[in-house]
Order: sequence, then C-alpha cells, then structure tokens
Amino acid sequence: MSAKGSTNKGFRVSVDAMGGDFAPEEIVKGAIDAARELDAEVILVGIEADIEKELKKHDISGIAVRIVGAKEVIRDGQEAAFEVFRRPDNSASVAARLVKDGEADAVVSAGNTGAVMVSAMQHLGMMPGLDRPMVGGAFLGLSPQTVVLDLGAVVGAQPYHMVNFAVAGTVYVRSFMGIDNPTVGLLNVGAEEGKGNETAKEAYPLLQKSGLNFIGNVEGVDIPLGRANVIVCDGFVGNILVKFCEGLGKRVSGWLRDELNADVSQKRLEDVSERLYNLMSPGVALGGGPMWGVNGVACVAHGSSKAPQIVGTIRQAKQAIESGFVGRLRGELERIQGLTGEQ
Amino acid sequence: MSAKGSTNKGFRVSVDAMGGDFAPEEIVKGAIDAARELDAEVILVGIEADIEKELKKHDISGIAVRIVGAKEVIRDGQEAAFEVFRRPDNSASVAARLVKDGEADAVVSAGNTGAVMVSAMQHLGMMPGLDRPMVGGAFLGLSPQTVVLDLGAVVGAQPYHMVNFAVAGTVYVRSFMGIDNPTVGLLNVGAEEGKGNETAKEAYPLLQKSGLNFIGNVEGVDIPLGRANVIVCDGFVGNILVKFCEGLGKRVSGWLRDELNADVSQKRLEDVSERLYNLMSPGVALGGGPMWGVNGVACVAHGSSKAPQIVGTIRQAKQAIESGFVGRLRGELERIQGLTGEQ
Repeated sequence: MSAKGSTNKGFRVSVDAMGGDFAPEEIVKGAIDAARELDAEVILVGIEADIEKELKKHDISGIAVRIVGAKEVIRDGQEAAFEVFRRPDNSASVAARLVKDGEADAVVSAGNTGAVMVSAMQHLGMMPGLDRPMVGGAFLGLSPQTVVLDLGAVVGAQPYHMVNFAVAGTVYVRSFMGIDNPTVGLLNVGAEEGKGNETAKEAYPLLQKSGLNFIGNVEGVDIPLGRANVIVCDGFVGNILVKFCEGLGKRVSGWLRDELNADVSQKRLEDVSERLYNLMSPGVALGGGPMWGVNGVACVAHGSSKAPQIVGTIRQAKQAIESGFVGRLRGELERIQGLTGEQ
Repeated sequence: MSAKGSTNKGFRVSVDAMGGDFAPEEIVKGAIDAARELDAEVILVGIEADIEKELKKHDISGIAVRIVGAKEVIRDGQEAAFEVFRRPDNSASVAARLVKDGEADAVVSAGNTGAVMVSAMQHLGMMPGLDRPMVGGAFLGLSPQTVVLDLGAVVGAQPYHMVNFAVAGTVYVRSFMGIDNPTVGLLNVGAEEGKGNETAKEAYPLLQKSGLNFIGNVEGVDIPLGRANVIVCDGFVGNILVKFCEGLGKRVSGWLRDELNADVSQKRLEDVSERLYNLMSPGVALGGGPMWGVNGVACVAHGSSKAPQIVGTIRQAKQAIESGFVGRLRGELERIQGLTGEQ
C-alpha cells in the first residue's frame, strides 16, 4: 500500500460522510469521536462544503482528520448498481476507491447498502469463488455469540452459498469473538437431516464435509437461545428475520412502557424499554459490520446510525484489520474451493 | 350427515384425547370444559381405560361426553404419513373418521401435526386445486388482526400456492374477525415489485389479478406492526418465524424478570412477563386453529396445549362450522381456479 497522504496513525479509515439518515451531522461527529477514541486517521468523503460546516462544530485539535471531495450522493431507494456506474463520483465509490489506492485501510458507510456493495465489489474485487459479498452479524443482542448470515445480500442462495456463509461466519466468530472452533447450524424447519426445502437438503451434506464444526439443522427457536455460534440461511430468510425483530422490538418496548407506567418511575422505564429495544433491534445493537467476501475491509452501518453506531462500526473495521480477517477468510475460502463443485 | 350416536347438541366435536404433551389429562379436562362452556357434544377418542380414568376426576353431569376407542397413538418425531397408513386405528385417524362418518362436525387434535394432516387428507379429502392443507393464524398476539400463512405445512411453495394462502387467509379473516375486505401482503425483502426470490417475483402478478385486496410486498417489520390482515409466505419462512418468536418470547420475558426484579413486586412481575410471553409466543397465544383446505373442519392445537388451549381450539372449530368457513373457502378456491395456471 502506498503511503500517499497518510499520517503516522496505525489505522486509516475512509468514511462516507454523506450516507445515512443522519448524514452528514452524525457521521462526522462519529468519525471525530472514533479518530480520538481509536487513535485513527479519518478521511471524510463527500460534499466538501457540507463536511467543513460540520467540522467547525467540533474541536479537532490533535486528531488526524481530512476531507476528500465527492460530488454525488446515492440515496436509499435508488437503484444502486445502475447509479454507481452512472455517477462514479458518488461518496460511497470515492470512499471505497481510497482503500484500493492505498490511502485508507478500510471504508465505512451508512449509505445505500447496494451502493456500498457495488462500490466495494468494483474497487476491491471479490474473493475467489464468490459472486457477491455476504452480510451477517450477531443480530440479536440477546444472543451475542450467535452470528446469522446471510442477512439480505444473497437472496435465492444456492447450496454452495450456504457453505460460504458458514466459512465466513466461522472466520468472523474466530476473529471477533475469540472462539476457536465455532459451532455451525443450518437454519431449517426441523432438526432431522432430510427436512426442509431443496436448498437446505442439498446444503446439509456439503456442510458435513466442509471441515467446519457443523452441528446439523437448527430451528428458529435456536437463534434467540444461541444454540450455535454461526447460523446460516438464505438472505431472503435472514432479511425478513432482521426486519421482523426490528418491528417486534418497537412493539414490545412500547407495550412495556404502557404496561408498567404505574409501577416504575418514568426515567427507569425509559431506560429499561430502550435497552430492551436495543437488545432486540439488530441495526441499533449491531452498529454495523464488515461486508464479507470483498478483498478488503468494507463495513456497512445501519442507515439509522448516529455517532455512537458510527464509532462502533469504525471499531469493527479496525478490529477486522488487526485480526487479519480478510486474509483468514480468503484462506478458508480457498481451502473449501472445489468441495462444493459449483465454484 | 347421519345422526348415529348424536345427541341434541348443535355442535359435535371429536377430540384426539391421546395427542399432545399433556395428554390425556389436560386434553380430557379441556374437552369437558368446552362441552359445558360451548354447549357441545364431545367425543373423546383414544385408549378407553386411560380416558375413563381421567373422566372419573371430573363432574360430568349434564354434559354430553362419550368415548370412542382407538388402539394406537402416533407420537411426535415419528414419520407421520407412514405411521398413519401402517396403524389406521390410531387416535388421530379414528377422530378424523368420525367426521367423515357424520358422527362429529369437527375434529380437534394436539398430536403429531403430520399425523393429523394425513388423517384429515385421507378421511375428509382435499378441496379442488389443492395438493396439501395449509396452516396459518394470527401468530403474534401483539398484532391480533394479522394472519400469516403458511406456517410450515407447505415447504417449498410455488407461486400458485401463495395465491391459495391469500385466498385461505382472506376467508379466515372474513369468517373469524368480521373484516369484510382484508388486505393481503406478500412477505418479501423490499417494498417494490420485482424484489425477492423467484417465487415472490412470480407470485406478485398472480396476486395482483386474484381479485383479492392485494396491497403489494410487505417486509418483516410489517408483521409486528400489523400492516396487512393476511401476510403470505413459504411455509419454510413461516415456520422459522413462528419458532423464532417462541424462543424470543422466552428470552425477553426472562430478561424482564431479571431486570425488574428490584423494581416491581414478584407477583406483578410474574404476571407481566407471562402476559408478554403469551403475546409473543404463538402456540400459547393461539391455542390452535383450522387446517385449511381439507373438506371439513380439522383443527390443530399446539403440542404444549393445556386445558384452556384445548377449549380455545374447540371454540375455533365451532366458529368454523357456524361461519360456514369450509364452504366459503371452497367457493373462493373454485373462483380462482385456472387463474394461476398450475392447478
């Protein structure tokens, strides 16, 4: 990697300052907090005037922060792949390019997930055997040692995708949670082999011979009970689960506030219901996480991220670099090449 | 229907006394409660000596209850279809046969769901255009006017199955909730048409021309928020959601007990956390519901049902008879025949 534009900081992150519901205000604030807290160099990417205006609100003495201009922003709801190619000077793409050019070690964005994904694929490239990145995480705060993937990047997964998910989840749990031999479960409608749809039936024997610590099928109940460290499923199912949890967290914490209104002080009740919401609602709890399978560290934060979630996501990006996540994942993916026959 | 063995009761139900985790004790108790509460004739089906022993524990004066013997019980975990044909004298099959023979108006069982399903298919037959029954319900107590199906009976659903689910859900909501023109949503990973897996993409236009009140795609978040009256999905997804909720209900109510231990009295806390669990955990909240698509009323109760859930399920069976659910569903299914091209 070139040292062009670098400081003496050990970790350099490019942050898409324009992406997310609370951009640029909360993104810039989070990036500054992260620069101080994690001793990182932060490169803020986006409309320069907007970023400068935000920077003026903060004390940035003694931290390493600079701006790289980008002219466009891809909003949620826009067709990501198309927009990325039509407007290459968008903030997500410019931020990803800084990693390719060796100016940053990792990229973080809370913007349009599709745009972040396509930018990362374009500028960092995919690992061998993968056709798209995967997204996953310990999405339920109540079972913090259970990572579920895919959570929506790979819809219509084939059996060999399930093995890729299992590999990525295993490397993630090893790298981020320090668990040496994570258990892997296949999300299904029954415990016995032979249950489920065609994809699940065909994925089962592939997982058995993957060399991973595969414990067989798990059911929906096993996610909140944390019965495996890595639970793999089609992105269609994962996405529905994550969003279901989000709505349920809202309803349950609201119910609790109404229900205990007369029993507990207002302040205490606010605190309990907010913590419960955070434990149930994935995006908030998670902050963000790496997009798995690109040749580099690209982390996606939830669109609703505020400064603390941006700090959390940048922390994960730093951890990913320090733990050698990308190299370890590439190594494991190479190991299982050919095993599944479809790569 | 023959009047053989019938009393003057307006509603006659055959109950599989041997099915469920708490059979025969809780099943017999629930059936007796239902006989009194719903002014029904109850036929208890199973091992005669076992049922007689339970009956002796209760005051059965003035209610219509009788026993019909069955020699075998199919347990959970046994391969249902195979066992039903190998042992036709099992309690689930004998109970279903009583409806075919005109001795009962409906059948209720908390036993092996597969056995109940195969027995009902065998003795009552399927409605035109259907290859298997469907299972659904308002599975989340927090959104009581939202019915989701399929919940696990139809795994690997084809696009035309989604239309059947939508029809069955619509008739159910009309019959049981008194909502004239229920909204129908297709569970998907995004709101726009063209999102999702192949089945969802192909089901969308079929639902559009179904003549139902189709409002387009809905996402996971829309289930707890109750954004449609009928939400259709593959049984693979539905089953995972229901079981996920069950585990999550356990975890959340447990968390709440620990968290508020010092704030609220033990008794009050038990009450709140139990009610929250019931609101989240489908089987308990639901009690049970009709299996949709067989030519008759066959209701499945959750395996963990105790007496109150058995009463609830028998009440639903009575409502199904009184609302003409079966005839209405058959009529709607005939109306959409040919529309989907695959029936």
